[in-house]
Amino acid sequence: MEVLFLGTGAGVPAKLRNVTSIALKLLEERGSVWLFDCGEATQHQILHTTLKPRRVEKIFITHLHGDHIYGLPGFLASRSFQGGELDVTVYGPKGIQNFVETNLSVSQTYLKYPLHFVEVSEGIVFEDEQFLVEARLLEHGIASYGYRVVEKDRPGVLLVDKLKEAGIEPGPVYKKIKNGERVTLKDGNVVDGKKFTGPDIKGRVVTILGDTRFCGAAKELAEGADLLIHEATFASGEEGLAHEYFHSTTTQAAQIAKAANAKKLCLTHISSRYDREDWKMLEAEAKKIFAMTEMAHDFKEIEIPSVK
Amino acid sequence: MEVLFLGTGAGVPAKLRNVTSIALKLLEERGSVWLFDCGEATQHQILHTTLKPRRVEKIFITHLHGDHIYGLPGFLASRSFQGGELDVTVYGPKGIQNFVETNLSVSQTYLKYPLHFVEVSEGIVFEDEQFLVEARLLEHGIASYGYRVVEKDRPGVLLVDKLKEAGIEPGPVYKKIKNGERVTLKDGNVVDGKKFTGPDIKGRVVTILGDTRFCGAAKELAEGADLLIHEATFASGEEGLAHEYFHSTTTQAAQIAKAANAKKLCLTHISSRYDREDWKMLEAEAKKIFAMTEMAHDFKEIEIPSVK
Ligand SMILES: [Zn+2]
Ligand SMILES: [Zn+2]
Repeated sequence: MEVLFLGTGAGVPAKLRNVTSIALKLLEERGSVWLFDCGEATQHQILHTTLKPRRVEKIFITHLHGDHIYGLPGFLASRSFQGGELDVTVYGPKGIQNFVETNLSVSQTYLKYPLHFVEVSEGIVFEDEQFLVEARLLEHGIASYGYRVVEKDRPGVLLVDKLKEAGIEPGPVYKKIKNGERVTLKDGNVVDGKKFTGPDIKGRVVTILGDTRFCGAAKELAEGADLLIHEATFASGEEGLAHEYFHSTTTQAAQIAKAANAKKLCLTHISSRYDREDWKMLEAEAKKIFAMTEMAHDFKEIEIPSVK
Repeated sequence: MEVLFLGTGAGVPAKLRNVTSIALKLLEERGSVWLFDCGEATQHQILHTTLKPRRVEKIFITHLHGDHIYGLPGFLASRSFQGGELDVTVYGPKGIQNFVETNLSVSQTYLKYPLHFVEVSEGIVFEDEQFLVEARLLEHGIASYGYRVVEKDRPGVLLVDKLKEAGIEPGPVYKKIKNGERVTLKDGNVVDGKKFTGPDIKGRVVTILGDTRFCGAAKELAEGADLLIHEATFASGEEGLAHEYFHSTTTQAAQIAKAANAKKLCLTHISSRYDREDWKMLEAEAKKIFAMTEMAHDFKEIEIPSVK
């Protein structure tokens, strides 16, 4: 599980920071990639990575501002052109479906794969055996969601040596044992899978927020997260500006990470008013409050290690 | 007057060729730039040039396929964000206004400058003292226009030496004489401006076509043009494919340039099936028929010299 930043700027594209898009790589976990936001030229950024558009399974849109959605029609169209055949589901605020459908129909673009929409409200927006995604409204003047991606706990590793000691030979039965099931062996003996597996592997939590002011919902979404991705449009000291424009400062993002007991914070959505020379300062401002802070840049990748 | 290619690929963006956009630089002529098509990431391409978005006065859209329009909402929004205040007029097929307005309204984008639309049909779509733009329908399955940009002839240079010989002193009167007017001097003498100016300066013609099959309207729009920009999605010999997909080959583009007595041909909209190594071959195919052919590439600039 890795997060790959495709665009880390605010509002308008700049040479060093494109507008927002973040890829959550779940290649080992489910052979797929989830995108969060899709600003203009996200597909161009992808050309410079190893990401395969056909692997993109879900796209979560935080809010409908242009710098977060204008790349979506082009991405979806090119994915089809390049042979993508598997379904894609787009999650986002009310209006996202009309936006995509108008773009595709005006341009007479016919996708070769099924496209689904989930116009989200607060609560669980997706759940399967592996993952759960919860959405909460933030504070941004326009409906802006934060997403908490929760990987479910998995059964621990199979204790193969212990099984062999107990005289249980490898075979299809190992899979059931690994799942912690109670299994009846050929000889009639009953085995409790839980006794032959290590402790459960804790699922990971990644919280990816849309644009927002300093707000309580951000903290709740980030509670205990392995990684919190929080916008930091402004430098510390600009809290007035941040409030006025519905954005956050570096300090505020760090305060959220600290209050939520997150393990790591990554700052993104950096205004082009800050030059390359300012970035270290922005990071340092947040680190004063929350040491495990990193600054995002385009193409930065962060691994979220499995806690064993 | 120069043409600057911002995107020269077909269908989907590639590392070396972005999707379509062409800038007609009229900085000397009228202090402005006209764009022809605006594929995704046109504004990103502009970041690598000296073009100023606020100078863009008119945008002509040839057709509504995504690779020609998906960059338009982002360009218009960023132009506003970057302080553009002068009006912009977008010309294009029916549907272009709904496309732009839906994108801007869904994303709650409010422009700080007036935006106008002209949904074109065949004929003259713009005319002032300086320029005239004529549109004709091509053959592309979807309504696709070609644009013929005609610079009007201007009065010739003022023959200052001849004026001085005739004892006519410099002053405001020179401007009227330069315009070829009949002027009454202070001493009562009447001067015929035409006798004190060189021959009219011939206006230039630039023809920029949307995607099209080999067709008669292309030739008519290109008649005697100083520069014809014609798509060449396919190589010579692929006329069957070109017909089927409503595109042209290199040879067909050259045949149009030749039949129209154009002065120069530039090939664009090159399919990503052709590698860097193939480009010389594509150019050579056209040159066999029309020697004054050049191959476009992203950021290529062509000057269209004034004919004196
Ligand atoms: Zn934003
Ligand atoms: Zn095209």
